[in-house]
Amino acid sequence: MSPPDEFERIAALTRGLGVGAGVVLGPGDDAAVLRPRAGHDLVATTDTFVEGRHFRREQLPLEAIGRRLAAANLSDLAAMAAEPRWALFSFAIGEHWSEADVLALQHAAAVALEAEGATIVGGNLSRTSGPLVVSVTLLGEVEHGLHWTRAGARPGDVLAVTGTPGLAGHALAEAASGAAWPSAYLSPPCRVQVARTLAAAGGVTAAIDLSDGLSGDLAHLARASGVGAELDAAALSPGALEPSDDYELLLALDPPQCEALEAAARAAGAPLTRIGRCVSDGLWVLGPHGARRALEVRGYDHFA
Amino acid sequence: MSPPDEFERIAALTRGLGVGAGVVLGPGDDAAVLRPRAGHDLVATTDTFVEGRHFRREQLPLEAIGRRLAAANLSDLAAMAAEPRWALFSFAIGEHWSEADVLALQHAAAVALEAEGATIVGGNLSRTSGPLVVSVTLLGEVEHGLHWTRAGARPGDVLAVTGTPGLAGHALAEAASGAAWPSAYLSPPCRVQVARTLAAAGGVTAAIDLSDGLSGDLAHLARASGVGAELDAAALSPGALEPSDDYELLLALDPPQCEALEAAARAAGAPLTRIGRCVSDGLWVLGPHGARRALEVRGYDHFA
Repeated sequence: MSPPDEFERIAALTRGLGVGAGVVLGPGDDAAVLRPRAGHDLVATTDTFVEGRHFRREQLPLEAIGRRLAAANLSDLAAMAAEPRWALFSFAIGEHWSEADVLALQHAAAVALEAEGATIVGGNLSRTSGPLVVSVTLLGEVEHGLHWTRAGARPGDVLAVTGTPGLAGHALAEAASGAAWPSAYLSPPCRVQVARTLAAAGGVTAAIDLSDGLSGDLAHLARASGVGAELDAAALSPGALEPSDDYELLLALDPPQCEALEAAARAAGAPLTRIGRCVSDGLWVLGPHGARRALEVRGYDHFA
Repeated sequence: MSPPDEFERIAALTRGLGVGAGVVLGPGDDAAVLRPRAGHDLVATTDTFVEGRHFRREQLPLEAIGRRLAAANLSDLAAMAAEPRWALFSFAIGEHWSEADVLALQHAAAVALEAEGATIVGGNLSRTSGPLVVSVTLLGEVEHGLHWTRAGARPGDVLAVTGTPGLAGHALAEAASGAAWPSAYLSPPCRVQVARTLAAAGGVTAAIDLSDGLSGDLAHLARASGVGAELDAAALSPGALEPSDDYELLLALDPPQCEALEAAARAAGAPLTRIGRCVSDGLWVLGPHGARRALEVRGYDHFA
């Protein structure tokens, strides 16, 4: 039997895909045709995983790579309070990857995306002499005017996070010395539903996903909002300030609405942890006896 | 001066972008926010260029690579009769690519996209130890029900093409022996406007873009439509049946509307050439004295 050609591979990768809400025409033509809903804006993000940079294939099951790829894109939509709808996958496949490996990775990503309402509607397949590169473009929708940005935080707003910032970076360091992966690394929890709940409630003034690390992503949010921030050392998990791709949310909350938002997040299964507050300028860590030191910003830099 | 970090690179790549129609929020947040138009469907495609496969950097100016990358995506939208609106770029950058090289490539692509009404609204930047991989997702819009597919051709429909199928494959072969690139290779003409004009007129029953080569793409259209096809050898340019990424359109036309469509295409600056007709089954080439031979399907296969 001869190895599958490009079009047989595409057929295998698209089998069973493209059936979902709002899909007028799925994979198999020159482009997908999708039906946006009235009263909504479209929200679009793209995230790429490169073998050897975003994951090491010998360290991680293909299914976990696929789920983390989905999570990287889903958390960008969660940070905009958008509802995931449609995804496109683009693979540049290294020669040492079999069709079954690529299918396993994509299938795991597809299942994670479908659980949040998104359908794979198209993609592209090519080869590379280098490591695998897979790009996902995820499209979502948000009601007019409801989307969050990084730019709305004001001095006095409460800073809160979902989950455990630093967990992914810690897991990566531990794995290097042979430790097992925590399940939250292999299957990152998705914060889309809690984001949608909080956006409907109102009172979130700014949001960003934690894909580089808390200190770096906090710095982005503070810069975009034109504010400073002060973190409470006692509220941070160990390693919370190290580079880490957690796919959690950092939120700025309007103080009077804070308790109601916390209750809503608990009810949505994603309790918030207060970690500090916005101030007029500077980035700070507040120690146990009121001592304030400058925050050292340490995000992941692909070009360092 | 230290080399630019990831965020300085992103700032350089996004400077001046994201300003365009329907852009609520451009680059710089977790995702872009876009405003679709009522009465339209969204049309989404993604195309990837891999260094060493889709282009050889030492052979081709960076600007031509960028223009061809834009053309690859634009021609997918043209084949759906969609209007380009928004684009996302994802780069996995090889270590031998400078920031200026990446900027030059993206700038050329951005100019080609903007000329057709599309704005770059977001993207992703990472590194790879292998060759450059750049993925573009292009989003467009088409009035409800107006989009073309590969699937509507009927026996008797006229087959016609824009431009000169086979030109790109021929140019590639000639370049290997030192010939200069034809300008249509360095700056592929864009067929979006003629597609929009013909879609508004009505009478195009199926469409596909010629990104693999006329014979392979004709086979895709015929299979999707459930028809056969017969090409007139005398109507084909030399090398028209070889693998070739031309970014031209192959159209099936309703015979009674054929002349009006040809006149409209001429007026839009992209005259059509009739190359054959749809038949009930089989793929054939009709020779000068009525002799019919089976068409040898030769598309570009990334996995051959």
